[in-house]
Amino acid sequence: MPSLFVLGGARSGKSRYAQHRAEATGLSPVYIATAQAWDDEMRDRIHLHQQDRGPAWSTVEAPLALAEAIRAHNASDAVVLVDCLTLWVTNLLLADRDIPAATTDLTKVIAGARGHVVLVSNEVGLGIVPENALARRFRDEAGRVNQAVAAAVGEVQLVVAGLNLTMK
Amino acid sequence: MPSLFVLGGARSGKSRYAQHRAEATGLSPVYIATAQAWDDEMRDRIHLHQQDRGPAWSTVEAPLALAEAIRAHNASDAVVLVDCLTLWVTNLLLADRDIPAATTDLTKVIAGARGHVVLVSNEVGLGIVPENALARRFRDEAGRVNQAVAAAVGEVQLVVAGLNLTMK
Amino acid sequence: MPSLFVLGGARSGKSRYAQHRAEATGLSPVYIATAQAWDDEMRDRIHLHQQDRGPAWSTVEAPLALAEAIRAHNASDAVVLVDCLTLWVTNLLLADRDIPAATTDLTKVIAGARGHVVLVSNEVGLGIVPENALARRFRDEAGRVNQAVAAAVGEVQLVVAGLNLTMK
Repeated sequence: MPSLFVLGGARSGKSRYAQHRAEATGLSPVYIATAQAWDDEMRDRIHLHQQDRGPAWSTVEAPLALAEAIRAHNASDAVVLVDCLTLWVTNLLLADRDIPAATTDLTKVIAGARGHVVLVSNEVGLGIVPENALARRFRDEAGRVNQAVAAAVGEVQLVVAGLNLTMK
Repeated sequence: MPSLFVLGGARSGKSRYAQHRAEATGLSPVYIATAQAWDDEMRDRIHLHQQDRGPAWSTVEAPLALAEAIRAHNASDAVVLVDCLTLWVTNLLLADRDIPAATTDLTKVIAGARGHVVLVSNEVGLGIVPENALARRFRDEAGRVNQAVAAAVGEVQLVVAGLNLTMK
Repeated sequence: MPSLFVLGGARSGKSRYAQHRAEATGLSPVYIATAQAWDDEMRDRIHLHQQDRGPAWSTVEAPLALAEAIRAHNASDAVVLVDCLTLWVTNLLLADRDIPAATTDLTKVIAGARGHVVLVSNEVGLGIVPENALARRFRDEAGRVNQAVAAAVGEVQLVVAGLNLTMK
């Protein structure tokens, strides 16, 4: 089934674009959040975003077990929106998980999906080399995940200032 | 009337591209600088840039009241070049102004302009999340302004290494 | 002869793309490395990369004298791959060399090349202004070199997440 990867900068409008594309399929939309509700403030913010998306959407949290969450919620009449891969890479890094293995799992799930899969990620490699070693490692891992996902999907859109550019 | 938004990175050639496009209209060119002459060195640099643009151009300084400056200098036989929005956002942030309200004013002036309007801005969201909280806030505000202006204009060009890519 | 400039972010797949394009010419490939082997670890890494490229490639180190290295190894039956200009700019900056003069030499060599020339560089200007003064200077110099090289070559590709976008 078709899959879409939406790549963009901070405040580029990438999540809104991805949401519109997911809704345009007319399928039953499932939002897979990689953000974790650490405290009440975060829980409130996640709740507000849920209300923004409206009652048609169901929401699932998958800070680490992303491939499993897509597999569990992907059906031929569903569209799954993953927002975002950058946060997922951060979570894997902080939990000291095997990122290449998790990436392989993810790309297999995308390739075998019965319904639509839409994935959102940040492009973070177009600035100066970060001075912080953890930030450099994150940048490397995020870049590798973005390349692997871009290779696995059928369509890639780069979003800049709310406008999309077809990369694939 | 047509309006053009030129978005690019640092040292991408975005200002030169915007200036060429403004001159190619054949209209009377007005340069609206958002930079402020804080000291003599800055005053000298601004003066040098003015000489570079040549005698056809008139120059106006608008570090904060940008919508007003465009409104005042926009005429059916004029092209107004705003360089750049990123510095304007910085000025608004440091002066603790209402950035969403100022952005709405700006997009209204663009939509209602009688002459050509060309606006230049930096894309700053494609690197690593800044460690500095003010830099993060600036990045968010600049991204929102870029999205709003991109939606308001008729044409958007992304400039990378001196080459332009049509986004809209 | 045709020349190609491959611009991309960190971990964007730009080097792999450039290598594929060089090999697709069917010409005798020469790799010009701007990285310097400061210690045994670096020497080992450079050796590993050489083995990855395979026995068809010959490798030359040119941390500073890049124009000379291209001139020396460029022949009508050869393709020269320079990886990467960003590191070369760093080397020039740290050695306190005249970067505009070196850039002019480089663009002359590209324009006069008898064989294919493929050059790789990082786009580093799409993040927040760096707080570090040397990083700001590097960003300015790298941006100017990228503009000059993009103007001198026949083809420019921007690589994002392993996908290429034709800029020229």
